[in-house]
Amino acid sequence: MPEPSAKPWKDKLHEVIYEADTTAGKFFDVVLLFVIVLSIIIVMLESVKDINAEYFHIFYVTEWVITIIFSIEYILRIISIKNPKSYIFSFYGIIDFVSTIPTYLTLFFGGYNVLLAVRALRLLRVFRILKITRYLGEADKLAVALRHSRPKIFVFLFAVFIITIIAGTIMHLVEGEAGGFDNIPLSIYWCIVTLTTVGFGDIAPITPLGRFIASFIMITGYGIIAVPTGIVSAEYSRAGEKQPQLNTQVCPHCNESKHLDGSEFCHNCGNKLNE
Amino acid sequence: MPEPSAKPWKDKLHEVIYEADTTAGKFFDVVLLFVIVLSIIIVMLESVKDINAEYFHIFYVTEWVITIIFSIEYILRIISIKNPKSYIFSFYGIIDFVSTIPTYLTLFFGGYNVLLAVRALRLLRVFRILKITRYLGEADKLAVALRHSRPKIFVFLFAVFIITIIAGTIMHLVEGEAGGFDNIPLSIYWCIVTLTTVGFGDIAPITPLGRFIASFIMITGYGIIAVPTGIVSAEYSRAGEKQPQLNTQVCPHCNESKHLDGSEFCHNCGNKLNE
Amino acid sequence: MPEPSAKPWKDKLHEVIYEADTTAGKFFDVVLLFVIVLSIIIVMLESVKDINAEYFHIFYVTEWVITIIFSIEYILRIISIKNPKSYIFSFYGIIDFVSTIPTYLTLFFGGYNVLLAVRALRLLRVFRILKITRYLGEADKLAVALRHSRPKIFVFLFAVFIITIIAGTIMHLVEGEAGGFDNIPLSIYWCIVTLTTVGFGDIAPITPLGRFIASFIMITGYGIIAVPTGIVSAEYSRAGEKQPQLNTQVCPHCNESKHLDGSEFCHNCGNKLNE
Amino acid sequence: MPEPSAKPWKDKLHEVIYEADTTAGKFFDVVLLFVIVLSIIIVMLESVKDINAEYFHIFYVTEWVITIIFSIEYILRIISIKNPKSYIFSFYGIIDFVSTIPTYLTLFFGGYNVLLAVRALRLLRVFRILKITRYLGEADKLAVALRHSRPKIFVFLFAVFIITIIAGTIMHLVEGEAGGFDNIPLSIYWCIVTLTTVGFGDIAPITPLGRFIASFIMITGYGIIAVPTGIVSAEYSRAGEKQPQLNTQVCPHCNESKHLDGSEFCHNCGNKLNE
Repeated sequence: MPEPSAKPWKDKLHEVIYEADTTAGKFFDVVLLFVIVLSIIIVMLESVKDINAEYFHIFYVTEWVITIIFSIEYILRIISIKNPKSYIFSFYGIIDFVSTIPTYLTLFFGGYNVLLAVRALRLLRVFRILKITRYLGEADKLAVALRHSRPKIFVFLFAVFIITIIAGTIMHLVEGEAGGFDNIPLSIYWCIVTLTTVGFGDIAPITPLGRFIASFIMITGYGIIAVPTGIVSAEYSRAGEKQPQLNTQVCPHCNESKHLDGSEFCHNCGNKLNE
Repeated sequence: MPEPSAKPWKDKLHEVIYEADTTAGKFFDVVLLFVIVLSIIIVMLESVKDINAEYFHIFYVTEWVITIIFSIEYILRIISIKNPKSYIFSFYGIIDFVSTIPTYLTLFFGGYNVLLAVRALRLLRVFRILKITRYLGEADKLAVALRHSRPKIFVFLFAVFIITIIAGTIMHLVEGEAGGFDNIPLSIYWCIVTLTTVGFGDIAPITPLGRFIASFIMITGYGIIAVPTGIVSAEYSRAGEKQPQLNTQVCPHCNESKHLDGSEFCHNCGNKLNE
Repeated sequence: MPEPSAKPWKDKLHEVIYEADTTAGKFFDVVLLFVIVLSIIIVMLESVKDINAEYFHIFYVTEWVITIIFSIEYILRIISIKNPKSYIFSFYGIIDFVSTIPTYLTLFFGGYNVLLAVRALRLLRVFRILKITRYLGEADKLAVALRHSRPKIFVFLFAVFIITIIAGTIMHLVEGEAGGFDNIPLSIYWCIVTLTTVGFGDIAPITPLGRFIASFIMITGYGIIAVPTGIVSAEYSRAGEKQPQLNTQVCPHCNESKHLDGSEFCHNCGNKLNE
Repeated sequence: MPEPSAKPWKDKLHEVIYEADTTAGKFFDVVLLFVIVLSIIIVMLESVKDINAEYFHIFYVTEWVITIIFSIEYILRIISIKNPKSYIFSFYGIIDFVSTIPTYLTLFFGGYNVLLAVRALRLLRVFRILKITRYLGEADKLAVALRHSRPKIFVFLFAVFIITIIAGTIMHLVEGEAGGFDNIPLSIYWCIVTLTTVGFGDIAPITPLGRFIASFIMITGYGIIAVPTGIVSAEYSRAGEKQPQLNTQVCPHCNESKHLDGSEFCHNCGNKLNE
C-alpha cells in the first residue's frame, strides 16, 4: 500500500467494510459487532411478554434504528464491491438480507410474529466479523481436528441412530401406552433422550422389563460416549502442525476471502489485491 | 473377467445380488436400501394411531408391495447361490426371513400386533448393504479400536454393575418406600439411571442421608465416565496402522464375504471367485 | 509338585479353597461363584413384596441352604489355613463372616429387616473369586492407570466440591424456598445433581436470575468433565508397559496372595509355597 | 536461617502466618483450616430451619468465637507484614475482610439474612491454606494443562453459546407456550439444559416437530462434549514436563508469594527473604 490516499473511495470503502487490517476496518467491525449483539438482545427481550409490555416503545425505536443501520450497511456492501452478485448470492449476503427485511415486512403485516424471530438469524452475522478470531490460531486448529473427525463421527452417529430405532421399537412393544411409549417415533425420541444421558423424565419406563431394557440402553449410552471423544482427542493431537496464516483481506473483484498473509494477487481470479 | 457375457445367468444374478462391484450390483443395493428405509418408515407411522387411521389403505398396499419385493429378493438369493443352506442359516438369511414373514402371518391373525413391529428388524438388513461403507475406511478403523477396547470396557462395566448393586441395596435401606425405592431391583435401576448421569427424576431421594449418598454416586459416575473414554482414545490412536483392503466379492460356493482386493480364489473353500 | 498325593489333607484343602491353579480349585471357585450369585438374586427378589409373598417358602429354604454352605466354607477356610487369624481378621474374612451371620440372627429377631439386606455384602465376595480375571491382563492395566490418576482426580474432585458449596450458597440466596432451594445443604445437593449433568428435575430454578446462574453451573459441569477424562487417557497410554504376571497361589502360612508366576517361596514370610 | 532466635517477633509472626515451611507455620495452617471448615458447616446448618431452631444457641456462640478468631488473625496479618496495604487490597485480604464483617453487622441489622450467607465466602480462604497442595505436584500440572486449554475451550464455549441462542429461538417458534417455551431467554435456558445433557424435565417439548429438533440438539450435545475433552487430553499429555518447584515463602515487604525453592531475594521487590 504505497499511496493509500490515491485510492478511489470505493476501494477505501471496500477495505473498511470487508477487511479488518486497518484501524478504520477494525473500528467498523467493533461497531457492527455491538449493533448485532444489541439487536439480538432486543429480539430476546421482545419475546418476554412482561418486558415487552413495559418497554415496547424503546424496543420499537431501537429496532428501527438498527434496521436502518443494517440497511445502509447492506447497500454500502453492494456499492463497494466490484462484482455485487458475488456478495448478494453468497451465504452471508443472503443472511444479511433475510435478517434485515423482516422489520420492513412488519409494516404491512404487523404485530409480534414469526417474522420478528427470524431476526435472530442476525447472530450468524457475528461469525463473519469474528474472522478476527482466526488470529487466535485456536479456532483454526480446532476446525481442522473437527473436519478430520467428521466422517468418523458421522459413521458413529449413524450407528447410534440405528440403535435408537431398534431399541425404540422394542420399548414400544414392552412398555406400550402405560409408560407413555405411545408409538414408535415417540419411543425413538425417548431412546435418544436416554442414550444421550439427557433424561428429561417426561417419559420413563414403569414395567420391570422396560426398566431392565432401559438400563441396558443407559449403560450403552454411557459407554459409547467414549467413541467421539476418543476420535477428537486423537485427531486434535495430530492437528498440532503449523497451519498457514490467513489474513482478513477480501478480493474486491471476486469477493474471495481466504488469502495467505503476504499475497499480492487473488488466488481465485488473479486480480491484484489492494491495488 | 474376460468374457462376462459368457457367464451363466446364475453367476450374473449372484454378482448383482451379493456384490456391489458392478453397476448393476450398485443399482440393486441402492434400490434395496430405498425399499428398506421406506418399509421402516411405514412400520413407524403405522404405530401412530392418528396417522394410521387416516392413511391405513396406503400403508396396507405399500406394505404388501414391499413384502412381495422382499419375498422375491429372498427367493432369488436362494436360487443364485450354489450352497443355499449357507445363506438360509446365516445371520442375514434369518433376518431376511423373519422380517418378511410377519406380513403373511397377519393374513391369519390380523390387526396391529407384535408381529408387525417385528418388521423393524428389517433395519438390520441395512448393515449388509452398507458394506459399501467399508470403502470409507473409517468404520473399519473405528471397529478395530472398539474390538481392542471391548475386554477392558467389559471389565469396567462389570465393576460398574457391582457398584450399582451395592449402592442400590444401601439406597433401598436408607430411603425405603418414601422416596420410591420400593425394592432392591428398583433401587439398582435408579442407581444405573443416576450413575450414567441420565437422571429421569421419576425416582429421587428425599431424605438428607439418601441425598448425601446419592451425591457420592453421582460424583462417582461423573468421575468414572473418564475410564472408557480413556481406553477408546488410547486404542484409537494405536489403530492408525493401515488395514488390509477388502472388496465386496462374495464366494458363490460358500457365501464367504471377506475377500482381500485382488483375490482369485476363496480363502475359505478354495473355489475360484468370479469364474 | 512332584508327589501331590503325598500332601496332607489340610494342604490339599488349602489349595482347593484358596487357589485356582488346579482343576479342583477352579471347580470350587465356579460353584462358589454360582452360589454367591444365587444368594444375591434371592436377596433382591425377597425385597420385592409381591414376589416375596408368593415364593416365600422357596426363598426361605434356599436361603438356609446357602447360609449353611457358606458356614461350612467359612469353617473350612479357618481349618485349612496354618494361621487362622490372618484370615479371620482380613478384609475378606470379615466380609465372609458378616454376610453369613444375618440369617442366623433372624432366628432371634425374625421378619424382613436390615439384617437381611446386609447379606448383599456377599457380592463383595465375588471380587475374591474373580482374581481369575487377572489373567485377562486388562483389569491390571486399568488398575494401574486408575492408581496413577487418583491423586489428580482427588484434586479435581476437591475443586468440584468447593465449586458446589459456593454455587449452592448463591443459588439458595437467589432462589430461596420458591424453587425448592430450602437450605444450603439442599442447594449443594442440587448443584451436585446439576454439575454432574444428572439433572433429576425434582428441584429446578424458576427465577430468571436463578436460571441464568444455573446455566453457568451446567456449562461449567459440561466443560470440566473433560478434566478427569484427559487425566485417565494420558495415564492409560503410559500404563502400556508390561506388568509382571501374578498367579493365584496363596501362601498357606501367612495368607499372602500376590505371588509372581514361578515363585517357589512366599515373598512375605519366606516359607515354601506348594510344599 | 542461621539464627532464627535472633529474628524480631514481627518476622517470626510473618513466617508463622504467611508461610508453611516451619512446624509452627504448619500448625497454624492446620488450625485455621479446621476453623474455616467448622465455620462453613455452621453456615450450612443455620440455613436448615429445623436444625437452626434446635441448636440456635450453640451456633450463635460458636459463630462469635469463630468471628473473633478470624478478627484476631486479620489484625495479626496486618501487623506482621511490612507493607499492610499490599495485603489489605489483595484478593485474599478482601475475602478475609468480607467474610468476617457480616457477623458484626448482624448486631445492627439482626436475624437470618443475606449477610450471614456471605460468610460462605470463607470457603475461598481454604485455597490460600491449600498452597500446601502445591507439594503434591498434581494441582500444578493440572493447572498448566487447563491454562493452555483455556483459549480453545473459550472458543468452543462461544460456539456452544451461539448454537443455544439459535436453537432456542427455533424451539420458541416451534413449541410456543404449550411446551413451556414461553419466551426466547427461557428457550435458550432449556437449550443449555439439554445440550449439556442435564435435562431437568421441567420444560420439555411436546409437539412432534419440537421433539424432532430436540433430538438433534441432544445428539449435538452428546457429540460435541468430545471437543473440550480432546483438548484437555492433548494439553495434559504435553504438560508432562517438569515444573519449577515453588515453596511457600512470602516476601515480608511486598507480599509476593511465588518464590522458587532456594530463592534468597524476592524476585518482585528485590528485598531479602527470611532476613
